[in-house]
Amino acid sequence: MNPTGTPGGEAADPSAPDGWLDAVRWDAAGLVCAIAQEAGGGRILMVAWMNRDALAETARTGRAVYWSRSRGRLWRKGEESGNVQRVTEIRLDCDGDAVVLQVEQGGGIACHTGRHSCFFSRLVDGRWIAVDPVLRDPATLYR
Amino acid sequence: MNPTGTPGGEAADPSAPDGWLDAVRWDAAGLVCAIAQEAGGGRILMVAWMNRDALAETARTGRAVYWSRSRGRLWRKGEESGNVQRVTEIRLDCDGDAVVLQVEQGGGIACHTGRHSCFFSRLVDGRWIAVDPVLRDPATLYR
Repeated sequence: MNPTGTPGGEAADPSAPDGWLDAVRWDAAGLVCAIAQEAGGGRILMVAWMNRDALAETARTGRAVYWSRSRGRLWRKGEESGNVQRVTEIRLDCDGDAVVLQVEQGGGIACHTGRHSCFFSRLVDGRWIAVDPVLRDPATLYR
Repeated sequence: MNPTGTPGGEAADPSAPDGWLDAVRWDAAGLVCAIAQEAGGGRILMVAWMNRDALAETARTGRAVYWSRSRGRLWRKGEESGNVQRVTEIRLDCDGDAVVLQVEQGGGIACHTGRHSCFFSRLVDGRWIAVDPVLRDPATLYR
């Protein structure tokens, strides 16, 4: 599904206004916090950052694209692992500084550790405990 | 429920180690991104920020406390509106720069606009559309 609701998956009109991008309250580094949630209101899979180009491409293509702060470049989720995120909905919060993506997680693995979600550590008795299983050896995720 | 698993809701031993707080990758401003999700893996209600004191108090008391960047002080969610968040679980992500709280949202309203969730704007045909109803007049939320 194309999350912008426009037909075809690509923007029908390249000159279409992108005022919706101006409504985002980009931080000093030009980024917005992006949360990927399993489509249908489920598990939170990961949190990352998007710049304007990343959010625009995500909306246009229906595939999650983030801004990698460590690598200083666009990061098309799944570009190495193959575990692409298909985006079915994009929401913005009331003060415009965070977006929530509803995603279908390719391969069922969002985390570079080979787990379903990056939020696998739970606070128990004053310690972080890894409570979710590794589903796939990360050595086989990244070639 | 006390999310740290220690009995009584308050820290049983005030001298207990807080090494778990050192595992958090605080940003340059000493903050971590905090996502409040409806307990049981449901709707994402809001995103805010926590400093070390906010996260420590949240874990100790089981009530969500954030750091208000605009007001420059701790923000005990619901302190004005009464819509307190009870925290049933705290998770940290793989790179330590975001936490997810499972919360029971008092009054069913997390957003200052009187809506259930702050993420009420959905991207539709290149526009943000408010798709969730106002459940309560915000003028009656804040005295």
